[in-house]
Amino acid sequence: MTSTTTTTMIAAPNREMAALAEERAAPAFPVRDMTYFLDGGKDATELKERFMLELERDPVWRKDDWPNLTLPEMRERTMAKARLIVNFLANEPVHVFRARMAVISTVDPGFWTRLGVHYGLFFGALQSQATSNQLTYWVQKGALAVHNMYGCFLMTEMGHGSNVQALETTATFDEASDEFVIHTPSLTATKWWIGGAAHTATHGTVYAQLIVRGKRHGVKVFVVPLRDPKAGTLLPGISIGDCGKKFGRDGIDNGWVQFTNVRIPRSYMLMKHTQVKRDGTVIDPPLAQLSYGALIQGRVAMVVDSGNTAKKALTIAIRYGAIRRQFASPGADQETKLLDYTIHQHRLLPLLAQTFAMHFAGREVDAMYTALMEQLDSVQPGQDMTTVLETLKETHATSAGLKAYCTWTTLNLIEQCRQTLGGHGYSEYTGLAPMLKDWAVQCTWEGDNTVLTLQLGRFLVSCCREAITAKTKGTRAKLGAGVAYLAQVPEILKRVCPVPVDAASGEVTDAMAVLDPSILRTAFEVAAACAVAKATREFETALSKHMQGVSATNKKARAAATERAHEDSAHARFVAAKTHSMGYLFGKFVDGVAKAPADLAAPLHRLVQLYGAHAITEHAGVFLTSGYLTAAHVSAVQTAMNALLRNVRKDAVPLVDAFNLTDFVVGSPFGAKDGNIYERYFERVTKLNPPLPKAPYFESTIKPLLERGIQDEEYPELED
Amino acid sequence: MTSTTTTTMIAAPNREMAALAEERAAPAFPVRDMTYFLDGGKDATELKERFMLELERDPVWRKDDWPNLTLPEMRERTMAKARLIVNFLANEPVHVFRARMAVISTVDPGFWTRLGVHYGLFFGALQSQATSNQLTYWVQKGALAVHNMYGCFLMTEMGHGSNVQALETTATFDEASDEFVIHTPSLTATKWWIGGAAHTATHGTVYAQLIVRGKRHGVKVFVVPLRDPKAGTLLPGISIGDCGKKFGRDGIDNGWVQFTNVRIPRSYMLMKHTQVKRDGTVIDPPLAQLSYGALIQGRVAMVVDSGNTAKKALTIAIRYGAIRRQFASPGADQETKLLDYTIHQHRLLPLLAQTFAMHFAGREVDAMYTALMEQLDSVQPGQDMTTVLETLKETHATSAGLKAYCTWTTLNLIEQCRQTLGGHGYSEYTGLAPMLKDWAVQCTWEGDNTVLTLQLGRFLVSCCREAITAKTKGTRAKLGAGVAYLAQVPEILKRVCPVPVDAASGEVTDAMAVLDPSILRTAFEVAAACAVAKATREFETALSKHMQGVSATNKKARAAATERAHEDSAHARFVAAKTHSMGYLFGKFVDGVAKAPADLAAPLHRLVQLYGAHAITEHAGVFLTSGYLTAAHVSAVQTAMNALLRNVRKDAVPLVDAFNLTDFVVGSPFGAKDGNIYERYFERVTKLNPPLPKAPYFESTIKPLLERGIQDEEYPELED
Ligand SMILES: Cc1cc2nc3c(=O)[nH]c(=O)nc-3n(C[C@H](O)[C@H](O)[C@H](O)COP(=O)(O)OP(=O)(O)OC[C@H]3O[C@@H](n4cnc5c(N)ncnc54)[C@H](O)[C@@H]3O)c2cc1C
Ligand SMILES: Cc1cc2nc3c(=O)[nH]c(=O)nc-3n(C[C@H](O)[C@H](O)[C@H](O)COP(=O)(O)OP(=O)(O)OC[C@H]3O[C@@H](n4cnc5c(N)ncnc54)[C@H](O)[C@@H]3O)c2cc1C
Repeated sequence: MTSTTTTTMIAAPNREMAALAEERAAPAFPVRDMTYFLDGGKDATELKERFMLELERDPVWRKDDWPNLTLPEMRERTMAKARLIVNFLANEPVHVFRARMAVISTVDPGFWTRLGVHYGLFFGALQSQATSNQLTYWVQKGALAVHNMYGCFLMTEMGHGSNVQALETTATFDEASDEFVIHTPSLTATKWWIGGAAHTATHGTVYAQLIVRGKRHGVKVFVVPLRDPKAGTLLPGISIGDCGKKFGRDGIDNGWVQFTNVRIPRSYMLMKHTQVKRDGTVIDPPLAQLSYGALIQGRVAMVVDSGNTAKKALTIAIRYGAIRRQFASPGADQETKLLDYTIHQHRLLPLLAQTFAMHFAGREVDAMYTALMEQLDSVQPGQDMTTVLETLKETHATSAGLKAYCTWTTLNLIEQCRQTLGGHGYSEYTGLAPMLKDWAVQCTWEGDNTVLTLQLGRFLVSCCREAITAKTKGTRAKLGAGVAYLAQVPEILKRVCPVPVDAASGEVTDAMAVLDPSILRTAFEVAAACAVAKATREFETALSKHMQGVSATNKKARAAATERAHEDSAHARFVAAKTHSMGYLFGKFVDGVAKAPADLAAPLHRLVQLYGAHAITEHAGVFLTSGYLTAAHVSAVQTAMNALLRNVRKDAVPLVDAFNLTDFVVGSPFGAKDGNIYERYFERVTKLNPPLPKAPYFESTIKPLLERGIQDEEYPELED
Repeated sequence: MTSTTTTTMIAAPNREMAALAEERAAPAFPVRDMTYFLDGGKDATELKERFMLELERDPVWRKDDWPNLTLPEMRERTMAKARLIVNFLANEPVHVFRARMAVISTVDPGFWTRLGVHYGLFFGALQSQATSNQLTYWVQKGALAVHNMYGCFLMTEMGHGSNVQALETTATFDEASDEFVIHTPSLTATKWWIGGAAHTATHGTVYAQLIVRGKRHGVKVFVVPLRDPKAGTLLPGISIGDCGKKFGRDGIDNGWVQFTNVRIPRSYMLMKHTQVKRDGTVIDPPLAQLSYGALIQGRVAMVVDSGNTAKKALTIAIRYGAIRRQFASPGADQETKLLDYTIHQHRLLPLLAQTFAMHFAGREVDAMYTALMEQLDSVQPGQDMTTVLETLKETHATSAGLKAYCTWTTLNLIEQCRQTLGGHGYSEYTGLAPMLKDWAVQCTWEGDNTVLTLQLGRFLVSCCREAITAKTKGTRAKLGAGVAYLAQVPEILKRVCPVPVDAASGEVTDAMAVLDPSILRTAFEVAAACAVAKATREFETALSKHMQGVSATNKKARAAATERAHEDSAHARFVAAKTHSMGYLFGKFVDGVAKAPADLAAPLHRLVQLYGAHAITEHAGVFLTSGYLTAAHVSAVQTAMNALLRNVRKDAVPLVDAFNLTDFVVGSPFGAKDGNIYERYFERVTKLNPPLPKAPYFESTIKPLLERGIQDEEYPELED
């Protein structure tokens, strides 16, 4: 019972507020220091707090009424936010602006995308594909300042997303006029899902098949003006419509675009890599792979975003779990908090450990990306590129796999959190339902997760094969740090867990020894090595089968056979990539925790153990078949889970407090810091849905139903 | 490329239509016969077809524009559908009406709920809780015919769902006036989520604490008038508001309700079980468990609904997978169909097997329920109830576990199908995104899935303990058919798979032998027995610990210790229940398939194998630790998966064709029977979102942004 007057907000702490306060009475670690540690220092925390405050104070960022906005209202509201942000875009150091956007991504995923299509995709494409002259030209025209210009990114078509090389849109060089003709030759060639296209964009970077003198040169990028920035109307030859209602991210105006013989000057083709000269000569770039760099940034951002979004989801679920009570133990004077149920701990706390793992992985991968970009920027003409390209390849594959792994993990995490709220999780006012809808697309865009995971798998298999080849030659394969273990697969697979199994009972008595980070790290490594080795074996077996009778000189047939072998081993490769990413995350987690100040080490260590224990129990099959752990080890870990969870449970509220998200950012009455959940919830629901004296459609629909005439009909009698 | 004119619908078969047609060229079984078999005969199929046609022809059932309706529009439209259906309610045999509703549940889950709160919940409560006089009274007032009366079901409160016994609403008997006073004493006592309350209901069955002469007698059910059926306005003392926007099921008007000293006559308390006499005497029922029956029906319906909804989801995903192409093999003249990718088969086809398993389980459980109800109805006064109660208990626990298992499976299935559509899965016009949102609540209402799973677990543990006790007494426990295996746990756990492991290679050479249904059935049984035994062991261990020092006569302390032991073993119990349900489903699947005509047996058998193989590979840990299968068996099954999938893949389109859902029911351009997916998709999107000359908010929002003045500001110079 919360209060006896049911409708007024009360200031005195009620039972729910007390329930949350008691969780904070004696935290096992200094919470504010944990925040600093997670953010990377006091300054970073204060910067974040500044960003959060700036957003909260500006009424255009209001969030409480979102569930009741129509799609058009949401679109307009979202666009109105740009004015606060665009000024920072051109004037703020890049790392500060990125930190700002990271906050915005959790506050308003729709806006984040809406600006992202301009800044991340459109401007990003200019940065990575334009010559420096071209870049200067577009910046001067307002491309960075969002002045007289708003960009969109037109890669995907109705018929093609993942397979970019098969896009159908054409860009035909017309030598006579020195122009390209951009054209949509079919329905499936319609550009689709283009963020910003439906309402906003004045320009777009269009991916199209370059055709010169009747010859196709593959997909290149062209800047195409779409709308008159003064009038807002479409330019000739441009047809645009709205993709309409989506699962989530209502704030962004995704549209479809068709081009009908649209002419642009030759210089609007972005020519950093491929060039088309005045006379139609096409010059291909020496190192096409260098353009990969552009894809990595978005993926790294999504790993970081995964951690941030997970923090928000858990803030809601854990605070609610510490307040909501359901069922009493016999003899207890009040009902049990959900968080005190073993099963609730099993549901939520491993997700908390995953969130920390994603946090640290995000930080490390971001640093790796920054280092790579610095390396790329400092490349000198004529320099030997082998090492840079190796790092690029590894970062590319790793970030692809992690993007998939973390966005999937987060999607599942949000849904699990949502379900822990019971019925209230189905409300749009408690935060998790809309979060799920906004999030889901992260598993698909900027590379479909399945496709990306298979890509990482291919890289791992090729590393493994390189290592085998090197071994037969008596050398050692040069592999990047994250995949170095693949150089020693046979040795790794021989490892057995040193934690003893009691001969008499057949049991492992010291379960905690199994949960030592170095043992766990090895367990993950062996599991990954085993999975990659399996995928490689399957590939090799399939390859010899398909190569039978193929002549060594028939390049096409050999390529087809290789492709078929990849296909036959696709599932093993998929499993290998996921196992690798799971272990990679663990490694980064342990590395990150190693840097923690002494008084934060204990709670973080418990989370590391939990991540490990949970992975082992959930993926027991993977760990058991890899041979490092025996059934006795796995069983001991399973048994240790309850105690482990009880320990982490004590830290649960202080840990989400350390995420330091303001009520505004969390945006859910159930995640409110003061714990006054029911009054906030009731207030929000009733304010947005004021009680009505009767249903708006009572007269039209309900009354005629309730009062309809029902008599037993009398029919004329027949004389037969 | 689909066509060169991009906007007109063409009648000639295009590439996509041809792609689907080729899947149907040589089905391995008679498709129409499969439909009859699944539906339970030609008549049943034709009845369903009649229902589908009737809905399709009536424009109020139009579905294509749903994504673009506002919440109020959706609510009104949904209510308008009642007129077509209510007439059948009172005039149609129950089994025919239930078959009709099963079709409606997949066509319009929102309407299904809207009528369901009246018919299933409100009227269901009358049927199970009212005396026969009371039932007659309410039927005469229009409760069955939906005439001058629309019902809702008020159990849940803001603060309590699962723990019904702790509801706070009070029903205090006022002896002077021979009335009950219904009252909401606190904010958390507000009735919440009540379907039909926000706009429609004139009456409700209210769950409240019965208080007579100051003494609480537990939660009972009361009929309370809420609105004037003529005027549509609220009655005195009734406060109602709208719960507002939900994740899905927009058509149903969930509301909150507060009672302020609302008086109802004594005879409005439903008194089939507990009675309150004129003088305030309270008479408790002899067999409270008999009221469980009412809960079972809803859960059985949700198992059936799981299968039906899964069929709809797979019709979309599999037809799309057979049409969509992405990436070409080297040398191929067109790109590969998604369904030909190994990994796509791994993603979709096990879900198809699960759908069939749910189909047969639904059928069998429905029959079990009907038989139980007949048994209960024929109970004679004075009859020995032991067997009936045993069956009731088993059916209750089994249906609880299956409701949870199947609704979770279906939620995951829809999301996996959604993801296989790539970006188009994020559109509201391709069917799966809205299906997911509508479905999610099935995991929560009518018993939260976690709570239900734990309940089944408790039942299994208690069966297992009974069996142990019986054994020590030299007898054998009497257990229902579905849990009979628990009487022989020690014997079961000794079983080893008879499929030989080759001594030399350590490998299983005959993987298909492992996939024999009888071997698989044993594998599931051993896995379940092992999991239940583990949960029981954990419970016993915890029990002896907590019972230490508790005196044999201290009932309260003993109850508390037992509860604590249940709590300590909660996770093992949860796993046990899930493993049991997984195996139960398999058993019903095999039993169902055994009844198939000869020419349908082969494809069904392949699905049985796939269900088994997928379970073993996904839950390898569970199967390995139970000891029946060895790592060699599991590995052989994993290896056999690819071939198994390739076989089922050939049947995929004919199998979803056999589900026999019309385009109207499927409601997705991607699930259309003719395969003309792109044109239908484009048409739907553009019709609902007609292209605009410029953004509606161009002048207000976009123009000011793009044209804002940005000069480098000049500041006054200071003379310091
Ligand atoms: C809300 C939203 C916004 C977007 N914004 C933009 C934007 O601004 N600009 C832009 O250009 N694009 C945008 N996109 C498009 C997005 O990038 C694509 O949807 C994505 O790249 C996937 O492509 P697809 O949809 O064509 O899926 P497909 O490539 O058709 O994939 C469909 C399915 O097939 C599977 N699959 C594909 N290839 C293989 C294979 N070889 N082996 C096995 N399985 C395979 C995939 O896993 C997937 O499940 C957006 C999409 C959405 C939903
Ligand atoms: C759209 C919608 C329509 C509805 N319609 C109606 C209606 O018409 N009439 C009506 O009366 N109700 C209705 N409900 C309410 C619904 O039946 C309840 O939401 C449901 O019973 C769960 O109760 P709860 O929400 O209070 O969750 P809670 O019981 O609070 O559960 C919250 C969480 O705690 C967990 N939990 C609870 N107890 C335990 C335990 N002992 N051990 C471990 N974990 C536990 C649960 O698993 C869950 O995750 C509706 C709900 C929704 C969302």
